[in-house]
Amino acid sequence: MEEKVYQRGKQSLEFLKEVYLVESASIVGTKEGQGPLSDLFDMIGSDDMFGCDNWEDAESSLQKDAVYTVLRKAAVPPEDIRYLFAGDLLGQSIASSFGLKNYQIPLFGLYGACSTCGESISLGSMAVSAGFADQVVCVTSSHFASAEKEFRFPLGYGNQRPLSASWTVTGSGAFLLSAKKNGADKEGRGGRARAKIAGITTGKIVDFGVKDSMNMGACMAPAAADTIYQNLMDFNRQPNDYDRIITGDLGYVGQTALIDLLKEQGFDISKQHMDCGIEIFDRETQDTHAGGSGCGCAAVTLSAYVLKKVEEGIWKRVLFVPTGALLGKTSYNEGQPVPGIAHGIVLESLMAE
Amino acid sequence: MEEKVYQRGKQSLEFLKEVYLVESASIVGTKEGQGPLSDLFDMIGSDDMFGCDNWEDAESSLQKDAVYTVLRKAAVPPEDIRYLFAGDLLGQSIASSFGLKNYQIPLFGLYGACSTCGESISLGSMAVSAGFADQVVCVTSSHFASAEKEFRFPLGYGNQRPLSASWTVTGSGAFLLSAKKNGADKEGRGGRARAKIAGITTGKIVDFGVKDSMNMGACMAPAAADTIYQNLMDFNRQPNDYDRIITGDLGYVGQTALIDLLKEQGFDISKQHMDCGIEIFDRETQDTHAGGSGCGCAAVTLSAYVLKKVEEGIWKRVLFVPTGALLGKTSYNEGQPVPGIAHGIVLESLMAE
Repeated sequence: MEEKVYQRGKQSLEFLKEVYLVESASIVGTKEGQGPLSDLFDMIGSDDMFGCDNWEDAESSLQKDAVYTVLRKAAVPPEDIRYLFAGDLLGQSIASSFGLKNYQIPLFGLYGACSTCGESISLGSMAVSAGFADQVVCVTSSHFASAEKEFRFPLGYGNQRPLSASWTVTGSGAFLLSAKKNGADKEGRGGRARAKIAGITTGKIVDFGVKDSMNMGACMAPAAADTIYQNLMDFNRQPNDYDRIITGDLGYVGQTALIDLLKEQGFDISKQHMDCGIEIFDRETQDTHAGGSGCGCAAVTLSAYVLKKVEEGIWKRVLFVPTGALLGKTSYNEGQPVPGIAHGIVLESLMAE
Repeated sequence: MEEKVYQRGKQSLEFLKEVYLVESASIVGTKEGQGPLSDLFDMIGSDDMFGCDNWEDAESSLQKDAVYTVLRKAAVPPEDIRYLFAGDLLGQSIASSFGLKNYQIPLFGLYGACSTCGESISLGSMAVSAGFADQVVCVTSSHFASAEKEFRFPLGYGNQRPLSASWTVTGSGAFLLSAKKNGADKEGRGGRARAKIAGITTGKIVDFGVKDSMNMGACMAPAAADTIYQNLMDFNRQPNDYDRIITGDLGYVGQTALIDLLKEQGFDISKQHMDCGIEIFDRETQDTHAGGSGCGCAAVTLSAYVLKKVEEGIWKRVLFVPTGALLGKTSYNEGQPVPGIAHGIVLESLMAE
């Protein structure tokens, strides 16, 4: 059964032919730059327009700059990148289209709501592991102002937010994946890879019927629980086989729900669990209610914080699970629930090797 | 260089480990059911609401039914499908999310505008060829009424359409890809595959600065030309190495532009070129102006018409190139141009084998 060597259980792949996360970049807005991870980002905007004329353009420029920065850090020219895997939260993914068009790199456009960071790294890893590409870049973004306009109301309306609401992160994270551990490009330029992508668990849509788009944590927690449960089953692992199990943007409300749901399934992840939406803002001083959210939340926290810990060997193995709420303004207004989806990535440290 | 065996030139892959298009399904609305391909579709709706309460829900039901139909035709249960690769034109891809959630199959959500059919088959083929999945389903949809509301105005406004405008196809096409030529599932059920997916050419964003969203053919023709040119270069082929070179939804205006652009590059495809948007409606009687468009246009025409010709060996090899216009209502209103993207699939007949 040679063709099955990569498949693990129902939803997971183990990359027997290795994939390396060579380099990453993170760019954030002003509020994120005032938060606890401030010192770790590659770039912090001086204002959230990033020199553009509108919020959507600003988000596009975040993606453009994140890709530019990851390529610069790895000393890899754009023409050595075979594919871009990219997405964002806006209708028709316009932040990606207009941010990335000048790179002239073949593009797979993705939509997985705030799980897109996990989806892009999953598909990018598959392409690299299979030998379809030597190097790919995965990039996602979100912007507080463009997301409020897209999903709720333009900022000028001054609408109020309940305590269960999360704050969409203004930021973009880009990741360079390669088949080679040392020397990112053909000429051997670029440094040692920062982590190994050991496997993935691809999520299915999970709908508990929650309809409150101002409580995305509750909407997404069942999907996160499902993907984490499936990952543990597929790889025959226990929660303590991971140093951290990291969700994308469940926030405080979603974290409680996630831990409870997995306890019902027989797994206690309360010691390992961490959420990017909780890490990125300071609860006491930044008034973001339930925490951070958005494609950019998981992406910049992975790039700036999680990857650093894995690279340094402080965490040997983490399960990184960006979480997405599958709603649009139209589906919400038509009374649809908000199903979730979550895509898991197994990152392993190279320090032990 | 074992890892490079699949890569061909700058943007193409040749699937040395074969991928088969085992079965397909097509479901369309009333207007498509009155067109020239009427007899070939699996299902024609008796009205365009498909028993739902709103247009978005109707589009979701198209995707649900297309997947149901392809699985039924191939006698494959949903639990044997490892991944869904799916997308549509609506903001946040709500047609896919709500149409597919009950299948409980791991999902990669995609956005490539009307090129998504090509994108989904590309990524699905990569997963199957690499041994990451034994069987996957790729599905895309569009709906005239939900698309008009999403991109232009709700139908009730009765806005007028210039002659360069195309008519969004109401329809969904689903494709079952498998690593096996005979017998789609583990138990050997299902018939012989209908075609081989021999390779792909992944498009990059091409922007000629055209801003007229009522002339999508002109917006997308440069991207189609780019992908077709790249395919011919990467595989070292001439246009007559293909029995047909088939674009997704350029329509009459875009067809002229495409043929002219490729002539400038030294390739005359006027004998081989066919466009799904031209085939699906009757120009004289159906009043669709420049032709059909939308994710569903390429998908249902591939399923109902192109695949039949390939299966019967009438066409030995075709290059199928769905074309997408990367715009949203917001980007259009903010004065952005409409870049294009096109993803090519090389289909080969199994009749000669």
